[in-house]
Amino acid sequence: MQKINFLALKGKTDPEEKRQAITDVFYGDVFKKIIKESKIKFLLQGTILTDIEETVARIKKQHNVLVQVGILPEKKYGYRVIEPLIELRKDDVRKVAKLLRLPKSIYQRMPFPGPALVARVIGEVTPKKIAIVRKATSIVERKLKSSGAFQYFPVLMQDKATGMRSNKREFGNIIIIRCIESQDARKAIPSRISWKILDKIQKRITTEIPEVNRVCYDITPKPPATIEYI
Amino acid sequence: MQKINFLALKGKTDPEEKRQAITDVFYGDVFKKIIKESKIKFLLQGTILTDIEETVARIKKQHNVLVQVGILPEKKYGYRVIEPLIELRKDDVRKVAKLLRLPKSIYQRMPFPGPALVARVIGEVTPKKIAIVRKATSIVERKLKSSGAFQYFPVLMQDKATGMRSNKREFGNIIIIRCIESQDARKAIPSRISWKILDKIQKRITTEIPEVNRVCYDITPKPPATIEYI
Repeated sequence: MQKINFLALKGKTDPEEKRQAITDVFYGDVFKKIIKESKIKFLLQGTILTDIEETVARIKKQHNVLVQVGILPEKKYGYRVIEPLIELRKDDVRKVAKLLRLPKSIYQRMPFPGPALVARVIGEVTPKKIAIVRKATSIVERKLKSSGAFQYFPVLMQDKATGMRSNKREFGNIIIIRCIESQDARKAIPSRISWKILDKIQKRITTEIPEVNRVCYDITPKPPATIEYI
Repeated sequence: MQKINFLALKGKTDPEEKRQAITDVFYGDVFKKIIKESKIKFLLQGTILTDIEETVARIKKQHNVLVQVGILPEKKYGYRVIEPLIELRKDDVRKVAKLLRLPKSIYQRMPFPGPALVARVIGEVTPKKIAIVRKATSIVERKLKSSGAFQYFPVLMQDKATGMRSNKREFGNIIIIRCIESQDARKAIPSRISWKILDKIQKRITTEIPEVNRVCYDITPKPPATIEYI
C-alpha cells in the first residue's frame, strides 16, 4: 500500500495535485480493495461541515468530500459512503463523542489531516522526506502534548539553508513548527509556547535528525495562513 | 548595474553559485569600472578575520575573500586590495571604530551581507523577489531596532504554502524572520522577542505585502544553523 502511495505522488509538487492523488489512492484503491474483499456495501466516514465548506469555497480540497464536488462514490468506486457528522463542526463532534461516553483520548484527539504526513511535506513527497517528518512529528507531539493547544505539528520544507556541523559547512533541511489555538479550525491563532520548550524542541530535532539544521516557528494566524501548509 | 546583477543570477539556485556570481560582478565589473574611470590603483575593503576563517573552512565563501582562496586581485581585476582589519573580529572592529570616534550609528551598525538582499532569497533571485524581501526588511528593521539584538532580518523562501484571503484559497510566499544575539558572529542564539512584537511584525508583513501569507521565526542557534540562509 505504501509503495502505491509514493508512486502516485511521484513528481507532484502542487498541493491540490498531491491531495487528488491521495483521494484517488484512498477511494479507488485502498478502500475499494478492502470493501470488495470483505463484501461490504457501505463506507462510514467522519466528513464534517468544515470539510465541505472549505472544499466548496475552494480553500482546500478535502479528500473526503465527494458528492458535493460531483463524485458519486457508488458509480465511481462501487460502494456507498455514509456521513453521519456532515452537519457538525469540530467542536460539536467533540460534544457528541463526549455524550456517547467515548474516552477523552478520542473526543479530545488532535485533528490529523486526511492525506496524513503527505500534508506535512512541501514539494515532491518521497519515503526519505516522510521518514524525516515522521521523526520530527514524534518529537513535536511529545513536547507539546502538555500545552493543551488545539493542534501542533512540524512541516518539512523543500527549501534548504546553510548550516555548520563539526565546523563544516552543510546545506540542510528546514522544519517549521505549527502550533495553534482554535475552536473549530475555521480560525486559528499561533500558540505562545515558552521559549524554553521551543528551544528544547529545536535542539532535539537538529540533534536526532541530522538532515535538519533549522527549526522555525510559524507565527501566522488563520487567516491569512491556513492551519496546514498543503 | 542592477540589470547586470540579475542577469548573472539567472537560473542560479545553489548558494555558493549565487555568492560566486556576486563576487564576479562586484570585482570584475562594478568595482573594476569605477576604479578604471577614477584612475585609482587600490581598493580599500573591510574584510575581517571571521570572513577568512569561514571561507577557508568552507563554511561559507565570503565574497570579499580573495588572496586566501588563490585569487590575485591585481592580476585578475587590475587593482590592488588593501584590508587593514584583516586580523580583527566584529567586536574588535567596533572597538577600533569607537576609539577612532566614529559615530555610534557606524560602530554599532548591524552586519549586512556582502551579497546584500541576494543572501535573503532562497532559490533563484528575481527583481520581484528582491522587491518583496526589501519591503519585509524595512518592516523588520523598524520593528526590531529597539530590541538591541546583534542582527535581525527577513528571508524569503522559494517554497510556498496555502493560505486564505477574502475567503479564497491562495498559494503564497513564506517569510522567515531571523533575529539573533551574538558577540562576534561566530556563535549566535535566537533572540527571545516578545510575542506582541512578533505578532505586530507578522501582521504588517502579511498586510503590506499581499504576496506573503506566512511568517515564521527562526529558533535555531549557530551552530547548527548559520546566521544567514545562503
